[in-house]
Amino acid sequence: MQAIIHFIGQVQSSLKSLDDCPRQANEGAPEATLEIEPEYQQGIADIQAGDKLVLLTWLHMADREVLTTHPRNDTSLPVTGVFSTRSPGRPNPIGLHTVTVVSVEDNAHIKVSGLEVLDGTPIVDIKPVWKD
Amino acid sequence: MQAIIHFIGQVQSSLKSLDDCPRQANEGAPEATLEIEPEYQQGIADIQAGDKLVLLTWLHMADREVLTTHPRNDTSLPVTGVFSTRSPGRPNPIGLHTVTVVSVEDNAHIKVSGLEVLDGTPIVDIKPVWKD
Repeated sequence: MQAIIHFIGQVQSSLKSLDDCPRQANEGAPEATLEIEPEYQQGIADIQAGDKLVLLTWLHMADREVLTTHPRNDTSLPVTGVFSTRSPGRPNPIGLHTVTVVSVEDNAHIKVSGLEVLDGTPIVDIKPVWKD
Repeated sequence: MQAIIHFIGQVQSSLKSLDDCPRQANEGAPEATLEIEPEYQQGIADIQAGDKLVLLTWLHMADREVLTTHPRNDTSLPVTGVFSTRSPGRPNPIGLHTVTVVSVEDNAHIKVSGLEVLDGTPIVDIKPVWKD
């Protein structure tokens, strides 16, 4: 059983390799730009500066065969089932990020704060942040 | 540009049709069970009662052509770009849910509190809740 994801855009970032990436956003991720494909731009018409968004990405460099891992790649931590970790390596490598919109240009480019993914990472979905 | 999701399991729920579904989890969603496929069960070995999880589902009944919508299906609210809403109808209908684990049986069935998706909904990913 499977489904096909159609990417709605991609991330433009100064992070060009995995070595550039902080482990987590609060460890110093740079601003990045969400470049939305023309066919999906109608869907972002109401996004504006200051919005808090949940961003879903496709971590295209990740190993999808991972079922257990050391959290944070720290081998001093015990091997753990992957669904109890935020490892990018996992069967469906969807990244989940909370970002704040800095600006929107041309209804196509959304600049956001603190995003720790590689340049070129595909974008799967954007949702407003909810308080539950 | 696209990618293929392999479902890791499915939701067992008393919600058998869209008419049964509350609009949001805090409006009275029932407990549900996450049934994990055998090939992915190693990945849930460390999940236990009390854990707070982020659950990603594939809302298989959703209309993927939606780019604008009335929030909460309320026609008194203005038409809004879909990425500023939590509409299930969206280009990649991934549901994002926060649940608490009630119990785990046979390292295969995770009972969770308050989940507002239909019986049979495919499961895409499970992550621990993070405080950011």
